[in-house]
Amino acid sequence: MAPESFILVHNIAKRHNIGTMARSATAFGVSEFILVGRREFNSFGSHGSTSHLRFRHFHSLSEARDYLKEKDCDICGVEIADGAFPVSQHPFRKSTAFLLGNEGTGLSAKECEICDFFVYIPQYGCGTASLNVTVAASIVLHHFGIWAGFPERIRDGNKFSVAEKPVKQGGRNWCSESAEVVAQERKIRKQNGCHDLFEDSVIVNDSQSNLLDVLFSD
Amino acid sequence: MAPESFILVHNIAKRHNIGTMARSATAFGVSEFILVGRREFNSFGSHGSTSHLRFRHFHSLSEARDYLKEKDCDICGVEIADGAFPVSQHPFRKSTAFLLGNEGTGLSAKECEICDFFVYIPQYGCGTASLNVTVAASIVLHHFGIWAGFPERIRDGNKFSVAEKPVKQGGRNWCSESAEVVAQERKIRKQNGCHDLFEDSVIVNDSQSNLLDVLFSD
Repeated sequence: MAPESFILVHNIAKRHNIGTMARSATAFGVSEFILVGRREFNSFGSHGSTSHLRFRHFHSLSEARDYLKEKDCDICGVEIADGAFPVSQHPFRKSTAFLLGNEGTGLSAKECEICDFFVYIPQYGCGTASLNVTVAASIVLHHFGIWAGFPERIRDGNKFSVAEKPVKQGGRNWCSESAEVVAQERKIRKQNGCHDLFEDSVIVNDSQSNLLDVLFSD
Repeated sequence: MAPESFILVHNIAKRHNIGTMARSATAFGVSEFILVGRREFNSFGSHGSTSHLRFRHFHSLSEARDYLKEKDCDICGVEIADGAFPVSQHPFRKSTAFLLGNEGTGLSAKECEICDFFVYIPQYGCGTASLNVTVAASIVLHHFGIWAGFPERIRDGNKFSVAEKPVKQGGRNWCSESAEVVAQERKIRKQNGCHDLFEDSVIVNDSQSNLLDVLFSD
Protein backbone atom coordinates (compact mmCIF):
# COMPACT_ATOMS: atom_id res chain seq x y z
CA MET A 1 0.00 0.00 0.00
CA ALA A 2 1.24 3.49 -0.80
CA PRO A 3 2.46 5.48 2.19
CA GLU A 4 0.22 8.28 3.41
CA SER A 5 0.95 11.53 5.22
CA PHE A 6 -0.95 13.10 8.10
CA ILE A 7 -0.72 16.45 9.84
CA LEU A 8 -1.05 16.45 13.61
CA VAL A 9 -1.38 19.83 15.29
CA HIS A 10 -1.63 20.39 19.00
CA ASN A 11 -2.80 23.74 20.31
CA ILE A 12 -1.56 25.91 17.49
CA ALA A 13 -2.19 29.40 18.84
CA LYS A 14 -2.73 31.43 15.66
CA ARG A 15 -5.64 30.06 13.78
CA HIS A 16 -4.72 31.71 10.49
CA ASN A 17 -1.67 29.42 10.51
CA ILE A 18 -4.07 26.45 10.41
CA GLY A 19 -5.74 27.86 7.30
CA THR A 20 -2.53 28.22 5.33
CA MET A 21 -1.32 24.86 6.65
CA ALA A 22 -4.54 23.25 5.39
CA ARG A 23 -3.89 24.76 1.95
CA SER A 24 -0.40 23.24 1.91
CA ALA A 25 -1.75 19.94 3.27
CA THR A 26 -4.15 19.52 0.37
CA ALA A 27 -1.47 20.66 -2.10
CA PHE A 28 0.87 17.95 -0.82
CA GLY A 29 -1.69 15.15 -0.73
CA VAL A 30 -2.15 14.82 3.03
CA SER A 31 -4.71 12.15 3.93
CA GLU A 32 -6.02 13.70 7.13
CA PHE A 33 -5.51 16.88 9.12
CA ILE A 34 -5.68 15.92 12.79
CA LEU A 35 -6.34 18.56 15.44
CA VAL A 36 -5.61 17.71 19.07
CA GLY A 37 -6.95 19.85 21.89
CA ARG A 38 -8.07 23.15 20.41
CA ARG A 39 -10.72 22.23 17.90
CA GLU A 40 -12.32 25.11 16.08
CA PHE A 41 -10.44 27.15 13.56
CA ASN A 42 -11.20 29.57 10.78
CA SER A 43 -10.18 29.20 7.19
CA PHE A 44 -8.11 32.40 7.02
CA GLY A 45 -5.48 31.61 4.46
CA SER A 46 -6.90 28.29 3.40
CA HIS A 47 -7.96 29.69 0.04
CA GLY A 48 -11.07 27.52 0.07
CA SER A 49 -9.03 24.36 0.31
CA THR A 50 -10.34 23.27 3.72
CA SER A 51 -13.43 21.85 2.04
CA HIS A 52 -11.17 19.40 0.15
CA LEU A 53 -9.40 18.13 3.24
CA ARG A 54 -10.48 15.54 5.79
CA PHE A 55 -10.27 16.77 9.38
CA ARG A 56 -10.27 14.69 12.55
CA HIS A 57 -10.23 15.75 16.17
CA PHE A 58 -8.94 14.15 19.37
CA HIS A 59 -9.07 15.57 22.85
CA SER A 60 -5.70 14.19 23.88
CA LEU A 61 -2.35 13.34 22.35
CA SER A 62 -2.59 9.73 23.52
CA GLU A 63 -5.90 9.24 21.70
CA ALA A 64 -4.30 10.63 18.53
CA ARG A 65 -1.28 8.36 18.97
CA ASP A 66 -3.49 5.28 19.42
CA TYR A 67 -5.43 6.14 16.26
CA LEU A 68 -2.23 6.57 14.24
CA LYS A 69 -0.56 3.46 15.63
CA GLU A 70 -3.59 1.40 14.59
CA LYS A 71 -2.82 2.61 11.09
CA ASP A 72 0.84 1.51 11.51
CA CYS A 73 1.88 5.09 11.11
CA ASP A 74 5.14 6.69 12.29
CA ILE A 75 4.84 9.91 14.27
CA CYS A 76 7.51 12.42 13.28
CA GLY A 77 8.05 15.56 15.35
CA VAL A 78 9.04 18.66 13.41
CA GLU A 79 11.56 20.22 15.76
CA ILE A 80 15.11 21.56 15.84
CA ALA A 81 16.29 18.92 18.30
CA ASP A 82 19.39 16.87 19.02
CA GLY A 83 19.17 13.70 16.97
CA ALA A 84 16.69 15.21 14.52
CA PHE A 85 17.39 14.43 10.85
CA PRO A 86 17.64 17.18 8.24
CA VAL A 87 14.38 16.70 6.35
CA SER A 88 16.16 16.55 2.99
CA GLN A 89 17.65 13.20 4.09
CA HIS A 90 14.14 11.72 3.84
CA PRO A 91 14.37 9.53 6.95
CA PHE A 92 10.92 8.04 6.29
CA ARG A 93 9.92 4.38 6.39
CA LYS A 94 6.15 4.23 5.92
CA SER A 95 3.01 6.32 6.44
CA THR A 96 3.92 9.25 8.67
CA ALA A 97 2.07 11.80 10.79
CA PHE A 98 3.93 15.08 11.27
CA LEU A 99 3.49 16.68 14.67
CA LEU A 100 3.74 20.47 14.78
CA GLY A 101 3.98 22.25 18.10
CA ASN A 102 2.95 25.65 19.28
CA GLU A 103 4.37 28.63 17.35
CA GLY A 104 6.22 30.14 20.28
CA THR A 105 7.49 27.20 22.26
CA GLY A 106 7.89 24.36 19.77
CA LEU A 107 7.22 20.78 20.88
CA SER A 108 6.72 20.16 24.59
CA ALA A 109 8.20 17.18 26.44
CA LYS A 110 4.76 15.52 26.37
CA GLU A 111 4.51 16.03 22.63
CA CYS A 112 8.02 14.70 22.05
CA GLU A 113 7.12 11.51 23.96
CA ILE A 114 4.69 10.32 21.28
CA CYS A 115 7.22 10.87 18.46
CA ASP A 116 9.15 8.01 16.83
CA PHE A 117 11.74 10.37 15.35
CA PHE A 118 12.30 14.04 14.50
CA VAL A 119 13.12 16.08 11.45
CA TYR A 120 14.29 19.69 11.23
CA ILE A 121 14.91 22.21 8.47
CA PRO A 122 18.48 23.53 8.38
CA GLN A 123 18.83 27.32 8.55
CA TYR A 124 21.76 29.35 7.32
CA GLY A 125 21.14 32.99 8.25
CA CYS A 126 21.42 34.91 11.49
CA GLY A 127 18.08 36.71 11.73
CA THR A 128 15.52 34.24 13.09
CA ALA A 129 15.54 31.42 15.61
CA SER A 130 13.01 29.34 13.68
CA LEU A 131 10.65 29.30 10.72
CA ASN A 132 6.98 30.11 10.71
CA VAL A 133 5.18 26.87 11.70
CA THR A 134 3.21 26.67 8.44
CA VAL A 135 6.35 27.18 6.37
CA ALA A 136 8.06 24.40 8.33
CA ALA A 137 5.10 22.04 7.89
CA SER A 138 4.97 22.78 4.17
CA ILE A 139 8.65 22.02 3.58
CA VAL A 140 8.35 18.72 5.44
CA LEU A 141 5.20 17.68 3.52
CA HIS A 142 6.89 18.61 0.24
CA HIS A 143 9.80 16.28 1.04
CA PHE A 144 7.51 13.44 2.15
CA GLY A 145 5.68 13.67 -1.18
CA ILE A 146 8.98 13.33 -3.05
CA TRP A 147 10.03 10.36 -0.92
CA ALA A 148 6.64 8.65 -1.26
CA GLY A 149 6.54 9.23 -5.02
CA PHE A 150 3.07 10.75 -4.97
CA PRO A 151 1.85 11.28 -8.54
CA GLU A 152 1.77 14.91 -9.63
CA ARG A 153 -1.63 16.53 -9.92
CA ILE A 154 -2.84 17.46 -13.40
CA ARG A 155 -2.61 21.13 -14.37
CA ASP A 156 -4.98 23.64 -15.79
CA GLY A 157 -2.72 26.22 -17.48
CA ASN A 158 -0.37 27.71 -14.87
CA LYS A 159 -2.35 26.32 -11.94
CA PHE A 160 -2.96 22.85 -10.57
CA SER A 161 -6.46 21.53 -11.20
CA VAL A 162 -8.87 21.84 -8.28
CA ALA A 163 -11.42 19.05 -7.85
CA GLU A 164 -15.05 20.01 -8.17
CA LYS A 165 -16.70 18.04 -5.40
CA PRO A 166 -15.35 18.84 -1.96
CA VAL A 167 -15.32 16.31 0.85
CA LYS A 168 -18.33 16.88 3.10
CA GLN A 169 -17.46 18.34 6.48
CA GLY A 170 -19.47 19.28 9.49
CA GLY A 171 -20.70 22.86 9.45
CA ARG A 172 -18.59 25.88 10.31
CA ASN A 173 -15.27 24.26 9.44
CA TRP A 174 -15.20 22.45 12.74
CA CYS A 175 -14.59 18.80 13.25
CA SER A 176 -18.23 18.20 13.89
CA GLU A 177 -19.34 18.01 17.46
CA SER A 178 -22.38 19.38 19.20
CA ALA A 179 -22.74 23.07 20.02
CA GLU A 180 -22.99 22.12 23.70
CA VAL A 181 -19.61 20.41 23.71
CA VAL A 182 -18.10 23.42 21.98
CA ALA A 183 -19.64 25.84 24.48
CA GLN A 184 -18.37 23.68 27.34
CA GLU A 185 -14.85 23.67 25.96
CA ARG A 186 -14.87 27.43 25.46
CA LYS A 187 -15.96 27.87 29.06
CA ILE A 188 -13.12 25.66 30.31
CA ARG A 189 -10.60 27.52 28.21
CA LYS A 190 -11.89 30.85 29.48
CA GLN A 191 -11.61 29.62 33.06
CA ASN A 192 -8.04 28.59 32.32
CA GLY A 193 -7.29 32.04 30.97
CA CYS A 194 -6.79 30.82 27.41
CA HIS A 195 -7.98 32.92 24.51
CA ASP A 196 -7.39 33.18 20.80
CA LEU A 197 -6.52 36.34 18.96
CA PHE A 198 -9.47 36.02 16.62
CA GLU A 199 -11.78 34.15 19.02
CA ASP A 200 -14.52 36.70 19.34
CA SER A 201 -13.86 38.99 16.43
CA VAL A 202 -14.19 36.39 13.69
CA ILE A 203 -17.20 34.13 13.63
CA VAL A 204 -16.94 31.76 10.74
CA ASN A 205 -19.76 29.91 9.10
CA ASP A 206 -19.85 28.41 5.66
CA SER A 207 -20.82 31.50 3.73
CA GLN A 208 -18.60 33.82 5.73
CA SER A 209 -15.62 31.54 5.37
CA ASN A 210 -15.88 31.91 1.62
CA LEU A 211 -15.94 35.65 2.10
CA LEU A 212 -12.86 35.45 4.31
CA ASP A 213 -11.11 33.40 1.68
CA VAL A 214 -11.70 36.13 -0.85
CA LEU A 215 -10.72 38.97 1.47
CA PHE A 216 -7.64 37.35 2.86
CA SER A 217 -6.60 35.09 0.00
CA ASP A 218 -2.87 34.77 0.14
CA MET B 1 32.98 32.95 -4.90
CA ALA B 2 30.10 31.25 -3.11
CA PRO B 3 26.74 31.58 -4.84
CA GLU B 4 24.22 33.94 -3.23
CA SER B 5 20.44 34.03 -3.25
CA PHE B 6 18.16 37.03 -3.65
CA ILE B 7 14.42 37.50 -3.32
CA LEU B 8 12.74 39.70 -5.89
CA VAL B 9 9.12 40.61 -5.25
CA HIS B 10 6.97 42.69 -7.54
CA ASN B 11 3.75 44.17 -6.25
CA ILE B 12 2.92 41.54 -3.69
CA ALA B 13 -0.56 42.56 -2.57
CA LYS B 14 -0.69 41.27 1.01
CA ARG B 15 2.00 42.88 3.03
CA HIS B 16 1.90 40.32 5.82
CA ASN B 17 3.19 37.84 3.24
CA ILE B 18 6.29 40.03 2.91
CA GLY B 19 6.89 39.80 6.65
CA THR B 20 6.80 36.01 6.77
CA MET B 21 8.81 35.84 3.56
CA ALA B 22 11.46 38.06 5.16
CA ARG B 23 11.63 35.68 8.11
CA SER B 24 12.22 32.75 5.74
CA ALA B 25 14.71 34.80 3.72
CA THR B 26 16.91 35.41 6.72
CA ALA B 27 16.54 31.79 7.84
CA PHE B 28 17.77 30.60 4.44
CA GLY B 29 20.67 33.03 4.14
CA VAL B 30 19.28 35.36 1.46
CA SER B 31 21.72 38.20 0.66
CA GLU B 32 19.16 40.86 -0.27
CA PHE B 33 15.41 41.22 -0.35
CA ILE B 34 14.57 43.31 -3.42
CA LEU B 35 11.22 45.04 -3.69
CA VAL B 36 10.10 46.32 -7.09
CA GLY B 37 7.26 48.82 -7.42
CA ARG B 38 5.36 48.82 -4.16
CA ARG B 39 7.90 49.83 -1.56
CA GLU B 40 6.66 50.12 1.96
CA PHE B 41 5.65 47.12 3.98
CA ASN B 42 5.00 46.27 7.58
CA SER B 43 6.76 43.58 9.49
CA PHE B 44 3.65 41.52 10.32
CA GLY B 45 4.93 37.99 10.48
CA SER B 46 8.60 38.84 10.24
CA HIS B 47 9.18 37.96 13.89
CA GLY B 48 11.71 40.78 14.22
CA SER B 49 13.87 39.33 11.50
CA THR B 50 13.50 42.25 9.06
CA SER B 51 16.15 44.14 11.00
CA HIS B 52 18.64 41.39 10.07
CA LEU B 53 17.91 41.50 6.36
CA ARG B 54 19.18 43.91 3.71
CA PHE B 55 16.40 45.45 1.63
CA ARG B 56 16.71 47.20 -1.73
CA HIS B 57 14.10 48.92 -3.83
CA PHE B 58 13.71 49.55 -7.56
CA HIS B 59 10.90 51.35 -9.30
CA SER B 60 10.88 49.05 -12.32
CA LEU B 61 11.61 45.44 -13.20
CA SER B 62 14.21 46.49 -15.77
CA GLU B 63 16.19 48.42 -13.14
CA ALA B 64 16.13 45.36 -10.90
CA ARG B 65 17.22 43.13 -13.78
CA ASP B 66 20.14 45.46 -14.64
CA TYR B 67 21.27 45.46 -11.01
CA LEU B 68 21.17 41.66 -10.82
CA LYS B 69 22.84 41.14 -14.19
CA GLU B 70 25.75 43.34 -13.08
CA LYS B 71 26.17 40.82 -10.28
CA ASP B 72 26.15 37.96 -12.84
CA CYS B 73 23.02 36.63 -11.23
CA ASP B 74 20.41 34.33 -12.79
CA ILE B 75 16.79 35.39 -12.43
CA CYS B 76 14.54 32.42 -11.69
CA GLY B 77 10.76 32.81 -11.85
CA VAL B 78 8.80 30.77 -9.33
CA GLU B 79 5.82 29.71 -11.41
CA ILE B 80 3.88 26.60 -12.43
CA ALA B 81 4.76 27.01 -16.12
CA ASP B 82 5.53 24.85 -19.13
CA GLY B 83 9.26 24.20 -19.14
CA ALA B 84 9.63 24.98 -15.44
CA PHE B 85 11.85 22.56 -13.50
CA PRO B 86 10.65 20.85 -10.33
CA VAL B 87 12.62 22.72 -7.69
CA SER B 88 13.95 19.49 -6.17
CA GLN B 89 16.00 18.98 -9.36
CA HIS B 90 18.13 21.98 -8.29
CA PRO B 91 18.51 23.50 -11.78
CA PHE B 92 20.82 26.22 -10.46
CA ARG B 93 24.15 27.37 -11.91
CA LYS B 94 25.27 30.38 -9.89
CA SER B 95 23.90 33.22 -7.75
CA THR B 96 20.15 33.38 -8.28
CA ALA B 97 17.37 35.87 -7.66
CA PHE B 98 13.95 34.30 -7.21
CA LEU B 99 11.09 36.32 -8.67
CA LEU B 100 7.73 35.90 -6.94
CA GLY B 101 4.61 37.28 -8.55
CA ASN B 102 1.36 38.58 -7.19
CA GLU B 103 -0.61 36.21 -4.94
CA GLY B 104 -3.67 36.02 -7.16
CA THR B 105 -2.34 36.10 -10.68
CA GLY B 106 1.17 34.65 -10.50
CA LEU B 107 3.87 36.00 -12.81
CA SER B 108 2.78 38.36 -15.59
CA ALA B 109 4.17 38.22 -19.14
CA LYS B 110 6.35 41.24 -18.33
CA GLU B 111 7.72 39.51 -15.23
CA CYS B 112 8.38 36.28 -17.14
CA GLU B 113 10.41 38.24 -19.71
CA ILE B 114 13.21 39.04 -17.24
CA CYS B 115 13.51 35.39 -16.09
CA ASP B 116 16.31 33.10 -17.26
CA PHE B 117 14.43 29.98 -16.19
CA PHE B 118 11.56 28.82 -13.99
CA VAL B 119 11.07 26.42 -11.11
CA TYR B 120 7.81 25.09 -9.68
CA ILE B 121 6.80 23.00 -6.69
CA PRO B 122 4.96 19.79 -7.60
CA GLN B 123 1.55 19.34 -5.97
CA TYR B 124 -0.24 16.06 -5.40
CA GLY B 125 -3.66 16.85 -3.94
CA CYS B 126 -6.88 18.14 -5.43
CA GLY B 127 -7.81 21.01 -3.15
CA THR B 128 -5.79 24.06 -4.18
CA ALA B 129 -4.57 25.52 -7.45
CA SER B 130 -1.36 26.82 -5.93
CA LEU B 131 0.58 27.33 -2.70
CA ASN B 132 0.68 30.46 -0.57
CA VAL B 133 3.36 32.69 -2.10
CA THR B 134 5.47 32.74 1.08
CA VAL B 135 5.33 28.96 1.37
CA ALA B 136 6.44 28.66 -2.27
CA ALA B 137 9.30 31.14 -1.76
CA SER B 138 10.43 29.30 1.37
CA ILE B 139 10.56 25.88 -0.31
CA VAL B 140 12.60 27.30 -3.18
CA LEU B 141 15.06 29.10 -0.87
CA HIS B 142 15.43 25.92 1.20
CA HIS B 143 16.44 23.98 -1.93
CA PHE B 144 18.84 26.68 -3.10
CA GLY B 145 20.61 26.57 0.26
CA ILE B 146 21.07 22.79 -0.08
CA TRP B 147 22.40 23.17 -3.64
CA ALA B 148 24.75 26.02 -2.67
CA GLY B 149 26.03 24.15 0.39
CA PHE B 150 25.42 27.07 2.76
CA PRO B 151 26.91 26.27 6.18
CA GLU B 152 24.31 25.54 8.86
CA ARG B 153 23.76 28.23 11.46
CA ILE B 154 24.85 27.45 15.03
CA ARG B 155 22.11 26.51 17.49
CA ASP B 156 21.11 27.67 20.91
CA GLY B 157 19.21 24.72 22.40
CA ASN B 158 16.23 23.90 20.16
CA LYS B 159 16.49 27.17 18.24
CA PHE B 160 18.95 28.63 15.78
CA SER B 161 21.11 31.41 17.19
CA VAL B 162 19.99 34.95 16.36
CA ALA B 163 22.72 37.56 15.81
CA GLU B 164 22.81 40.46 18.23
CA LYS B 165 23.55 43.41 16.00
CA PRO B 166 21.01 43.94 13.27
CA VAL B 167 21.86 45.47 9.91
CA LYS B 168 20.97 49.17 9.96
CA GLN B 169 17.96 50.07 7.86
CA GLY B 170 16.19 53.30 7.09
CA GLY B 171 13.41 54.09 9.57
CA ARG B 172 9.94 52.61 9.47
CA ASN B 173 11.04 49.41 7.74
CA TRP B 174 11.05 51.13 4.41
CA CYS B 175 13.84 50.99 1.93
CA SER B 176 14.88 54.50 2.82
CA GLU B 177 13.59 57.25 0.64
CA SER B 178 12.27 60.71 1.48
CA ALA B 179 8.79 61.18 2.94
CA GLU B 180 7.94 63.31 -0.09
CA VAL B 181 8.70 60.54 -2.55
CA VAL B 182 6.62 58.16 -0.47
CA ALA B 183 3.70 60.59 -0.32
CA GLN B 184 3.92 61.12 -4.08
CA GLU B 185 3.84 57.38 -4.73
CA ARG B 186 0.90 56.88 -2.44
CA LYS B 187 -0.97 59.61 -4.31
CA ILE B 188 -0.27 57.95 -7.66
CA ARG B 189 -1.38 54.59 -6.36
CA LYS B 190 -4.56 56.14 -4.99
CA GLN B 191 -5.28 57.75 -8.35
CA ASN B 192 -4.77 54.38 -9.98
CA GLY B 193 -7.25 52.81 -7.59
CA CYS B 194 -4.64 50.68 -5.81
CA HIS B 195 -4.89 50.11 -2.12
CA ASP B 196 -3.56 47.71 0.46
CA LEU B 197 -5.61 45.87 2.99
CA PHE B 198 -3.59 47.23 5.88
CA GLU B 199 -2.54 50.52 4.24
CA ASP B 200 -4.22 52.97 6.58
CA SER B 201 -5.01 50.87 9.58
CA VAL B 202 -1.47 49.86 10.46
CA ILE B 203 1.19 52.53 10.74
CA VAL B 204 4.52 50.96 11.50
CA ASN B 205 7.47 52.68 13.04
CA ASP B 206 10.41 51.07 14.75
CA SER B 207 8.91 50.74 18.19
CA GLN B 208 5.49 49.75 16.95
CA SER B 209 6.92 47.13 14.64
CA ASN B 210 8.37 45.38 17.66
CA LEU B 211 4.95 45.53 19.26
CA LEU B 212 3.40 44.04 16.14
CA ASP B 213 5.95 41.27 16.18
CA VAL B 214 4.87 40.36 19.67
CA LEU B 215 1.17 40.59 18.93
CA PHE B 216 1.25 38.72 15.68
CA SER B 217 4.25 36.49 16.12
CA ASP B 218 3.66 33.36 14.13
